[in-house]
Amino acid sequence: MKIVVVGATGTIGKAVVGALQDRHEIVKVGKKGGDLHVDITDAESIRGLFKKIGSFDALVSAAGKVHFGDFGTMTEKEFTVGLKDKLMGQVNLVLIGRDHINDGGSFTLTAGVLSHDPIRYGVSASLVNGALESFTKAAAIEMPRGLRINVVSPGVLTESLPTYGDYFRGHEPVPGARVANAYLKSVEGRMTGQVLTVL
Amino acid sequence: MKIVVVGATGTIGKAVVGALQDRHEIVKVGKKGGDLHVDITDAESIRGLFKKIGSFDALVSAAGKVHFGDFGTMTEKEFTVGLKDKLMGQVNLVLIGRDHINDGGSFTLTAGVLSHDPIRYGVSASLVNGALESFTKAAAIEMPRGLRINVVSPGVLTESLPTYGDYFRGHEPVPGARVANAYLKSVEGRMTGQVLTVL
Ligand SMILES: NC(=O)c1ccc[n+]([C@@H]2O[C@H](COP(=O)([O-])OP(=O)(O)OC[C@H]3O[C@@H](n4cnc5c(N)ncnc54)[C@H](OP(=O)(O)O)[C@@H]3O)[C@@H](O)[C@H]2O)c1
Ligand SMILES: NC(=O)c1ccc[n+]([C@@H]2O[C@H](COP(=O)([O-])OP(=O)(O)OC[C@H]3O[C@@H](n4cnc5c(N)ncnc54)[C@H](OP(=O)(O)O)[C@@H]3O)[C@@H](O)[C@H]2O)c1
Repeated sequence: MKIVVVGATGTIGKAVVGALQDRHEIVKVGKKGGDLHVDITDAESIRGLFKKIGSFDALVSAAGKVHFGDFGTMTEKEFTVGLKDKLMGQVNLVLIGRDHINDGGSFTLTAGVLSHDPIRYGVSASLVNGALESFTKAAAIEMPRGLRINVVSPGVLTESLPTYGDYFRGHEPVPGARVANAYLKSVEGRMTGQVLTVL
Repeated sequence: MKIVVVGATGTIGKAVVGALQDRHEIVKVGKKGGDLHVDITDAESIRGLFKKIGSFDALVSAAGKVHFGDFGTMTEKEFTVGLKDKLMGQVNLVLIGRDHINDGGSFTLTAGVLSHDPIRYGVSASLVNGALESFTKAAAIEMPRGLRINVVSPGVLTESLPTYGDYFRGHEPVPGARVANAYLKSVEGRMTGQVLTVL
């Protein structure tokens, strides 16, 4: 399969590429790193990316920023970051990518455990993750041409503990290789509309 | 208690007002109807509303629009309606309202069953409802002063079948009075961070 991995240079993306690259042709996409570049907050940039890639069989997205911070001082502005980036950035990869993906192809997005297991400073992340999970369930039933869509919702990665560990005290960390397996299940399996929680 | 009901003139809002008004002082808010007016898509309008109301003990929101339509032709633009109106409109009622609500007060928002039980044409509604449910779970753990927040997630109302019935074939309709009970539980009980699904 020809598989596009957006966020290929990131912690999750690298694990996914590692798990897929022996059997598949991988197009590695990053904001600045990777073979091709995209800014998922910009629909024009996404259109340009798919024009360069041509047709493909699967898209994995492991990209997307949200604002972490004290809910007590958060305003609409801080929420807008996650809405524009992690949420609508990934939704737009589907809305625009569906015109370029082959019949029976799949989209696999990334949410996260904060959708249902919140932490301090994570309100915007929770909101965005919940939106992505419900979007996936609904989009699956209206997909044409046998197209599939799933979302992986991982706990904090072992590899990310140096960066995020302080926020996730008591959360059981998950090794990247285990998280990558969920993306494999979505891409190489036949499921659709599923939230693949990895804990 | 002094209870602000935003969307008081709507199908759900009327049922909520009916269930609360014998025991409480109700401030009925609509876009055009009701005692006071607000446009929840406009933060300035929300600020103006709370200035008029002064302090209060509970806010119920049963307002919020999303775009219903064929996912196949939906673009970012159609999603923006729900993000701005039902999602951030209600989030902003909390972000701005929390400066005016009394200690121990409660916010009760409205999502809907499409968060996990999708229908055709409902992708944007699902996304927004999932976002509201996860937002509520996360916001609850960062609320100061004993403030509470819950979200009611009702199935289609019996009273709304003439309008929405065709979209919800096979969904068991729920009488407005039953849905109103969930708002009562949230406002008069002590729960927080809960999704009150009413089916
Ligand atoms: N790591 C975890 O523990 C964890 C757990 C649950 C969920 N998640 C979610 O998984 C996603 C990826 O997390 P991660 O830790 O792997 O992130 P990361 O290490 O920071 O990597 C982010 C990746 O996304 C790319 N990227 C960033 N902004 C972009 C944009 N606007 N357009 C296109 N690509 C962009 C980056 O490209 P460049 O390298 O070129 O900048 C990089 O490849 C995030 O949404 C995160 O919330 C992570
Ligand atoms: N009805 C159902 O079966 C059902 C089921 C599940 C979830 N829901 C959700 O529950 C919410 C209310 O539904 P409903 O059927 O009761 O709606 P509705 O009958 O259409 O009433 C909407 C109410 O919200 C007010 N409103 C509309 N836009 C507003 C804005 N921008 N700012 C402030 N107020 C605004 C309206 O005021 P005016 O009358 O002055 O315009 C009215 O009071 C919606 O978010 C809907 O998705 C409904």
